[in-house]
Amino acid sequence: MDKKIAIIGASGYTGWELIKLLFSRPGFDLVGLNSESNSGRPVSDLYPDADPKLKFTNYTIDEINRLEPNLVFLCQADGYAAANASKINSRVIDLSRDLRFAEGVVYGLPELNRKSIAASRLVANPGCYATACILAGLPAVQSGLVERIVFDCKSGYSGAGRTPSDRNDPKRIADNILAYKLSSHPHQNEIRQGLGLAAVSFTPHVLPVFRGIMATGHMILKKRTDAAMIRDKYRKFYAAEPFVRVMDRIPDLHDVQNTNLCCLGGFETDDADRLVVVATIDNLLKGASGQAVQNMNLMLGLPETEGLT
Amino acid sequence: MDKKIAIIGASGYTGWELIKLLFSRPGFDLVGLNSESNSGRPVSDLYPDADPKLKFTNYTIDEINRLEPNLVFLCQADGYAAANASKINSRVIDLSRDLRFAEGVVYGLPELNRKSIAASRLVANPGCYATACILAGLPAVQSGLVERIVFDCKSGYSGAGRTPSDRNDPKRIADNILAYKLSSHPHQNEIRQGLGLAAVSFTPHVLPVFRGIMATGHMILKKRTDAAMIRDKYRKFYAAEPFVRVMDRIPDLHDVQNTNLCCLGGFETDDADRLVVVATIDNLLKGASGQAVQNMNLMLGLPETEGLT
Amino acid sequence: MDKKIAIIGASGYTGWELIKLLFSRPGFDLVGLNSESNSGRPVSDLYPDADPKLKFTNYTIDEINRLEPNLVFLCQADGYAAANASKINSRVIDLSRDLRFAEGVVYGLPELNRKSIAASRLVANPGCYATACILAGLPAVQSGLVERIVFDCKSGYSGAGRTPSDRNDPKRIADNILAYKLSSHPHQNEIRQGLGLAAVSFTPHVLPVFRGIMATGHMILKKRTDAAMIRDKYRKFYAAEPFVRVMDRIPDLHDVQNTNLCCLGGFETDDADRLVVVATIDNLLKGASGQAVQNMNLMLGLPETEGLT
Amino acid sequence: MDKKIAIIGASGYTGWELIKLLFSRPGFDLVGLNSESNSGRPVSDLYPDADPKLKFTNYTIDEINRLEPNLVFLCQADGYAAANASKINSRVIDLSRDLRFAEGVVYGLPELNRKSIAASRLVANPGCYATACILAGLPAVQSGLVERIVFDCKSGYSGAGRTPSDRNDPKRIADNILAYKLSSHPHQNEIRQGLGLAAVSFTPHVLPVFRGIMATGHMILKKRTDAAMIRDKYRKFYAAEPFVRVMDRIPDLHDVQNTNLCCLGGFETDDADRLVVVATIDNLLKGASGQAVQNMNLMLGLPETEGLT
Repeated sequence: MDKKIAIIGASGYTGWELIKLLFSRPGFDLVGLNSESNSGRPVSDLYPDADPKLKFTNYTIDEINRLEPNLVFLCQADGYAAANASKINSRVIDLSRDLRFAEGVVYGLPELNRKSIAASRLVANPGCYATACILAGLPAVQSGLVERIVFDCKSGYSGAGRTPSDRNDPKRIADNILAYKLSSHPHQNEIRQGLGLAAVSFTPHVLPVFRGIMATGHMILKKRTDAAMIRDKYRKFYAAEPFVRVMDRIPDLHDVQNTNLCCLGGFETDDADRLVVVATIDNLLKGASGQAVQNMNLMLGLPETEGLT
Repeated sequence: MDKKIAIIGASGYTGWELIKLLFSRPGFDLVGLNSESNSGRPVSDLYPDADPKLKFTNYTIDEINRLEPNLVFLCQADGYAAANASKINSRVIDLSRDLRFAEGVVYGLPELNRKSIAASRLVANPGCYATACILAGLPAVQSGLVERIVFDCKSGYSGAGRTPSDRNDPKRIADNILAYKLSSHPHQNEIRQGLGLAAVSFTPHVLPVFRGIMATGHMILKKRTDAAMIRDKYRKFYAAEPFVRVMDRIPDLHDVQNTNLCCLGGFETDDADRLVVVATIDNLLKGASGQAVQNMNLMLGLPETEGLT
Repeated sequence: MDKKIAIIGASGYTGWELIKLLFSRPGFDLVGLNSESNSGRPVSDLYPDADPKLKFTNYTIDEINRLEPNLVFLCQADGYAAANASKINSRVIDLSRDLRFAEGVVYGLPELNRKSIAASRLVANPGCYATACILAGLPAVQSGLVERIVFDCKSGYSGAGRTPSDRNDPKRIADNILAYKLSSHPHQNEIRQGLGLAAVSFTPHVLPVFRGIMATGHMILKKRTDAAMIRDKYRKFYAAEPFVRVMDRIPDLHDVQNTNLCCLGGFETDDADRLVVVATIDNLLKGASGQAVQNMNLMLGLPETEGLT
Repeated sequence: MDKKIAIIGASGYTGWELIKLLFSRPGFDLVGLNSESNSGRPVSDLYPDADPKLKFTNYTIDEINRLEPNLVFLCQADGYAAANASKINSRVIDLSRDLRFAEGVVYGLPELNRKSIAASRLVANPGCYATACILAGLPAVQSGLVERIVFDCKSGYSGAGRTPSDRNDPKRIADNILAYKLSSHPHQNEIRQGLGLAAVSFTPHVLPVFRGIMATGHMILKKRTDAAMIRDKYRKFYAAEPFVRVMDRIPDLHDVQNTNLCCLGGFETDDADRLVVVATIDNLLKGASGQAVQNMNLMLGLPETEGLT
């Protein structure tokens, strides 16, 4: 029997990507696609190949519950997840920031928490920057090599969402790069928690590019260390991971756009005992909706990569 | 009497910018515009408003000398400057990397060496990345606050020059950001020398933008320091500088494109004792040809800002 | 004595460009810069080199009148000009669409109406598309060569203004070109009137570029005509025009961005008796604020090109 | 048994797209990937998920023949196809311009020649512009409505290939649109032949976009005709076509990028009896490699859409 899926907040970028990943996937039925602003509009306006009968909805949570979905994705702005998650009867993956540090919620980074994700009723999908930074730093930090890290990150403007703002204003972003929240971005704590390292600094920038994140990890090492040996550690650490690639060259956004991959490369050291590791992901896929589907696959007992390759 | 100026290597980006700054400037006469590949071609092909009689040339150094220029700009690829500079009779500004560490040559950063530039026969124009990083770090380093710096820099692809390469391939740069020379860029030493600080790490990236550099300076402080106080130090340090702006907000590329300005802002600290300073310049102006004209003004006894505002 | 200038609607793109053209121009004093949304904000937020005392205002029309400006620019959305122009005591240039066909108002295309602009109290500044298309077609139409024209036009997205819409949504415009109002754009009538030709069709497109318009004029000729002869007609027609360039090559947006020029080129014919003329302008300058300043110069008895080169 | 496929000229854009369409397609074996410049290089450099054993080759035609491929794609520059095609023993699809008008060669537009493609040994794949224009015009022309057409086309710069040129120079294309070959493009004849209409004019432009073509067809009608009726004709004409979509809105590049679709829309008429039809395709897929695979499917007796959705 088809898996029944509902999406609440289906008309933002992450909702659109989820729809794209699921509307033609065999064995799945999108029973609710809640969007206040687009309710009634056919999804084929977005995706010419979608079934014209598939439309955005505006159900109440009660109505969603009566549809008995196997899983509900919450793709709303920050602030709504706690209330909604408590009322939904089915399993839930929340893509907002709200529940990432909450009690009883599993942090949905499969490379960290694969087993507990599979067993969880409520999963908090990681932030896009945090996904890239944690995957970039984890093997080095867990090897005890790292004293502190500065993550200098560059994101496509889809990271700023669809609501017009300073960070997706087409005049501002054209021919430009914007630095923001230099020292106090909420993702900083998420990265520190994921890595188990307090001495982590984080600064994001917006690129004149729609999708993709590059995290340049500048890791101050406790002592001089051979770069090739570090790359080897990364290869071993991620050998069994279906979506992490450790490369011989430096990855860029083209390696990951429209994929669920996280590419890692660089692994150079300089005479100031700094190690550089570069991570790239698609912020809307491995950084959001792709990872959410990866988590859904784990939760529903499906092959982890199904629908993502 | 008009100042006579020659440019050798006039058909690269820095040559073009020099021509643009000088072709309609009153009191200047472009007596030689050497370009092997464009010799004979009218400059009005590039700039519709240039005098159609102004053409690219292919003079020998002897012919250049016989024209008795007041100053010669060398805009060639790395490797030619030492030989050419020694044969030219007039004063010389070299825009390549060749002479920046050479004996008897003044490093042409006016904010550091204004007086000796004015008196010099031969000036080595700073690199674009080095200009941004040195100006970003100087007040903090000279105040003794800084333990180490990681400069994470992002440049427009005009920094890679006009010769086709991996770093200006339109397919590669579109919708992308490219990290390169993660740990060993020759600019690193130039920055260390300019700042007088050895613990400097430097990593450049190429943006899908034609012109502009953002240098994000992550400065590890020796001890917790008030950010507002640091901004004040910067304001005082650069108070008399005609082309440096210390801003209340974070500068971006739009603030500096097509200008000779260096904008500085940010000045935030985090709980890991990192200070962030963001510097932006136009890599082809303050990072190359504009700074060269600023140096020329100093060398010829003209007002430093003439032709640059 | 300084000319006193007021701008009503000063925080849209055309207002910004007017401010940029005037804030540092000797002999001019910006006495009012009305913007409801930015009232009180310093202009130096936009232009780091503006006097920090220069601020956006929110004056009533009466207050504007009491300042006794020499000229007022109206840069508001369509619908306000008629009412405001009638209340303002000074001379007025309106940049909206409202008054372009109105009685007693001069259509402000200097190449058509130079003398009557100089004498007028109220000038309607032409639309950006209309400026490019009229200048592209005028010599051919007035020579009686043309049976019909299809103008296929491509504009930077600044033409859609600052208010978020489908035509400046960064996701939609990135990596894209958008055709719109295929057959019924209000500019079509403006072009027909300016050219004195009814058989004119017009279709606009939006480019992933901030500023610049290319108008590709496909002119069906009454009979086979020598292309070189047509180019000559254009050269003679525009010989005395300070801002129109007839080129040997095909112009592109780089030739005109950030200038008040209109570049014309192409002048090829094919075996289906079609002539192609390509015109490019900067939609915010020759297509709006630059042309408005050109008109202001004429109205105030100043040299027509002052402040525009 | 797996189908054996060889590609000659495998390191240009069309070769890359073919590899991407085939390297992971079940039932296919890429036995030769000839590229002089990349011989020996692993394909996984381009596509991280390709088998690292799959490498570019540099076989002679004799060696290719001995591999007994089921089909060979020729992706070389113009000028090589006739000689190579005559020496290859297997079936051939040529993507160059060379054979499109040759005797005994089938023009590979499935919407025109589906049956003869299936039976042919040698197919000439259509040009990208011609594909868009023919599909945009065919129903109207075959209905006898059209007197003449002006196709104003806009292409991504991948259409100019990978060899550096004026039309893919990153400095020239950034923030720009380039018109070229205003009246004499070789595609013009291809369009005339495909449509069976002589009064066709064609002008191409290059966009600051990597992939995608928009063809804006300005069709002068013999007499006033109802636009809705014309759209209906298009719907019926293409009702059975798997890759042509007739839309209610105007298509743009996002509708077709990375797909083999041709989207058609617009269908507006104006008071000068002009009909506007807008067609969009991905120039590298429906305009080149996707259409080549569609042709291959027909030639090998496979479902026409296999590997393309």
